[in-house]
Amino acid sequence: MQFVRSSYDARTLNKHLIIDHIRFSQGGSSRASLAREVGLSRATVSTIVNELLARGIVREAERVPRRGGRPPIRLEINPGGGFVAGVDIGATHVTLVLADFSGAVLAERREPLNIMDGPEICIRQVDVHLRALLASQGMSLEEIAAFGVGVPGPVSQETGEVIAPPIMPGWEDFPVRNTLQTLWGRPVLVGNDADLGALGEWVYGAGRGATHLAYIKVGSGVGAGFIFNGEIYRGAQGYAGEIGHITLLKDGPLCTCGNRGCLEALAGGAAIARQAQEAVQRGLPTRLDAIQPVERITARDVALAAQMGDLVSQQIVTQAGHYLGIAIANVINLLNPAVLVIGGGVSQMGDLLLEPIRHTARERSLPGAARGVRIVSAVLGMRSSGMGAVAYAITHALHALAE
Amino acid sequence: MQFVRSSYDARTLNKHLIIDHIRFSQGGSSRASLAREVGLSRATVSTIVNELLARGIVREAERVPRRGGRPPIRLEINPGGGFVAGVDIGATHVTLVLADFSGAVLAERREPLNIMDGPEICIRQVDVHLRALLASQGMSLEEIAAFGVGVPGPVSQETGEVIAPPIMPGWEDFPVRNTLQTLWGRPVLVGNDADLGALGEWVYGAGRGATHLAYIKVGSGVGAGFIFNGEIYRGAQGYAGEIGHITLLKDGPLCTCGNRGCLEALAGGAAIARQAQEAVQRGLPTRLDAIQPVERITARDVALAAQMGDLVSQQIVTQAGHYLGIAIANVINLLNPAVLVIGGGVSQMGDLLLEPIRHTARERSLPGAARGVRIVSAVLGMRSSGMGAVAYAITHALHALAE
Repeated sequence: MQFVRSSYDARTLNKHLIIDHIRFSQGGSSRASLAREVGLSRATVSTIVNELLARGIVREAERVPRRGGRPPIRLEINPGGGFVAGVDIGATHVTLVLADFSGAVLAERREPLNIMDGPEICIRQVDVHLRALLASQGMSLEEIAAFGVGVPGPVSQETGEVIAPPIMPGWEDFPVRNTLQTLWGRPVLVGNDADLGALGEWVYGAGRGATHLAYIKVGSGVGAGFIFNGEIYRGAQGYAGEIGHITLLKDGPLCTCGNRGCLEALAGGAAIARQAQEAVQRGLPTRLDAIQPVERITARDVALAAQMGDLVSQQIVTQAGHYLGIAIANVINLLNPAVLVIGGGVSQMGDLLLEPIRHTARERSLPGAARGVRIVSAVLGMRSSGMGAVAYAITHALHALAE
Repeated sequence: MQFVRSSYDARTLNKHLIIDHIRFSQGGSSRASLAREVGLSRATVSTIVNELLARGIVREAERVPRRGGRPPIRLEINPGGGFVAGVDIGATHVTLVLADFSGAVLAERREPLNIMDGPEICIRQVDVHLRALLASQGMSLEEIAAFGVGVPGPVSQETGEVIAPPIMPGWEDFPVRNTLQTLWGRPVLVGNDADLGALGEWVYGAGRGATHLAYIKVGSGVGAGFIFNGEIYRGAQGYAGEIGHITLLKDGPLCTCGNRGCLEALAGGAAIARQAQEAVQRGLPTRLDAIQPVERITARDVALAAQMGDLVSQQIVTQAGHYLGIAIANVINLLNPAVLVIGGGVSQMGDLLLEPIRHTARERSLPGAARGVRIVSAVLGMRSSGMGAVAYAITHALHALAE
C-alpha cells in the first residue's frame, strides 16, 4: 500500500506502461496480453500500439506460439527504431558502448582515463573516444537518440551535476549533463556508476526483473547501487549506496574519507594493493617481491599471485572477501534483496574472492533473508555500468519518442 | 525514472490520489489546488470530491485564508467518517489505540503481555484488552472500519502470517491476520512493528512527509523500518530492517541469532542490562549493586543510575550509543534518508544515549549524506508503532470506502 501517490498524466503513463511492458515482459507481449496485464481496455491498447507501430518504435514479430486457434501477434521494440550510446566514466578507464533500441551492442571500446585529471581533460578525452567510436560505424551524433553517462560519484538528478565526489577532486558541482548536452547536441542522462551497474544487471544481466536488486561494485573503491520495484534508489539527495564507507572495524586502517575501518579501506582494490605492498616490506614470503618498486604492486598482481598458489596473496584476498561478506550481510539484513550482484574489477578475481564473500554473507545474515537472496557475479563483468547507461538512454529515448 | 510501471485502475487511482492529497497535503486542499497538484481536470476532481462528500468521507472545512477574492473551500477528511483501532504487540507489552479517521486518539491503553507465551495466549489477551477498550467508549466491534496490528517480527504481506520470527518462538507461520479477522469480523492489516513505527512517525510524528525516512526502534532488541516515497519498504520477502543483526564487532559477544557482535548484542536493552549485571559481578563501583539478585537489573535501571551520575552506568550507555551511532551511520551511508527517527523504549533515555548516537553517526557517515539527514527522537515515543497501525488502518478504510 502506497500512502501518498504522486500525480501523473494518464495518456503519457499509458504509453509508457505499454512500451515498458513490451520491452521487459518475459513471455512476449501481444495486444491481448497487454490489455490483460496492463489493465487497459482493448481499444486503448490498440490505439496506442497502432501509434507506436506507425512511429516505428514498436514492430510486429512472429506470432506467439500456442496450441489451437490463431496465435496472437507478438510485439517487440523495433531495434532499428534508433540508437543510443552508454558511457561509463570510471576512476581509471572509460567504457563506451553503442547500441540499438533493443540493447544489442553495435560497437564498444574501453580506453584509459584518469578521473583525477579533472573534468575538462576527462570530458575532452571522452568526446574524442566517442566521436572515434561513431566514426568507426559511419555514424554521426545526430543519429544518437540519447546518451547515458555514468560517473564514479553522487549525481544530482535535478541539475545533472556531480556532488561531493570523494574520489573525484575538481569535479564538485561540475555540470556534466549540461556540458555534454552542449557538446553533443543530444539529450544526456547522467547517473552514478554503481546505480547504472545495478540497472545494467537488472535489464540485461544477472538480476533481470528482480523486484529488489543490490549491486556491489568492487573496484579500486567499493560502491553499491539499488533497484527497488523497477526504479533506481538514490536516497533523499542522491548519496545512497556508499557501502564503501560503512564502518566494519572501528579502530581499523585510515580511509580516504578520513574515518577508520571503512569497508573500502579493508577490501577495496587500493587496500588490497597496499596490504600486499606492506607484506613485501615486512619481508613475508611472497612471490610479489619480484615486483619492483614495491609501490607498483596492484590488486590485479595480488589476484594473479593468489591464483598461482601464493599463500600471502591468498590470505589477503580471503580477508578482503571476509570483510566484503560482512558488509554484504549488512545489506541483506537491512534491505532483503532478491538478488545481490557482485561486479567491478576486483570481482573478476572469481571464486577466490567470491567464496569467502558468499560464505561470510550467508553466515552473518538472518536465515530468512539469507535464504531469500541469490548472490551472483555480474554477468556483464566490466560492462555492467556501460550497459546500464545504455538502458537508461533507451528508456529516455522511447518515452520521449512516445510523447 | 521508473523502468517498469505496474498496472493500475485509473478510476480507483484518481480517488485514492484525491483522498491522499486531502489527508496529507501540508497547506490544506481545495478543489482548485487538487486539480493543479494532482494533475486531473477540474471536472474529474469535482465529480470525485462530490462523491466523497456525499459518502461522508470528506467534509468542507473553513475557507482557506488568502488575500483578495473569495477564498476557496478547504477540504478535509471527515473525522467522524469512521473509527479504527491500532494494536502494537510488543515483546513485553501491547499498546491499543482507538482513533477517528483524522487520527485523533479517542482512548488508548498499554498492558503487559509476554510474546514468548505464544500466539494463542497473546491473541486471547489482546482480544480481552481490545474489547475492554471499546467498552470503555461504549463502542462495538462493528463500528471499527479496520484494524492495524503490529508484531515484533517479519510479516508476509500475502498471507498475513508471521514468518521466521527471531524473538517470537511459537509464532512461526501463525496466521495473525486471519485469526484476528475471524475473531473481530472486520478487516485486519498486519505489519512489522518497526515498519509501523516508521509509518507512525511519518504520518503523525517526527518525519511528516519526508521523502525517505528511516526509523530505528531500540528496545530489548533493535529493529528498523523504512518509508521510501510514501511507501513501507519491506524487501523481497518482508525481512528488511533487521538492523539489530548487522555485524559491528566480528568477534564480539554472542547474539540470540547465533552470530557474534551484532548491534543488538552490543546495544539492545537486553545487552545493556547484561553488561550492567556483569559489571556488578566483577565488583565495579556502581550503585546498581543495590539491586538483588543481580539478574533483576534492567536497562531502565541502568538509565536511571546513569542519570543520577553513576559512572559505570554512564559508560555502558555511552558505549551502546556509540555502537548505535555506527549502525546508524551505515544506514545513512547506504540509504541517504532525509530523516532518521530513533524510537523504542531504550531511546527514552534521552540525551544520555542520543548524544553519543548523534556524534558517532555524523562522524562515521560521508559529509553529503550526513548534512542531508535530520537525526531526531520519536515524537510519539512509545506510541510510534501503535499510531502507525492506526495510519495503516485509516488508509485501508478510506480507500475501501471510496471503491
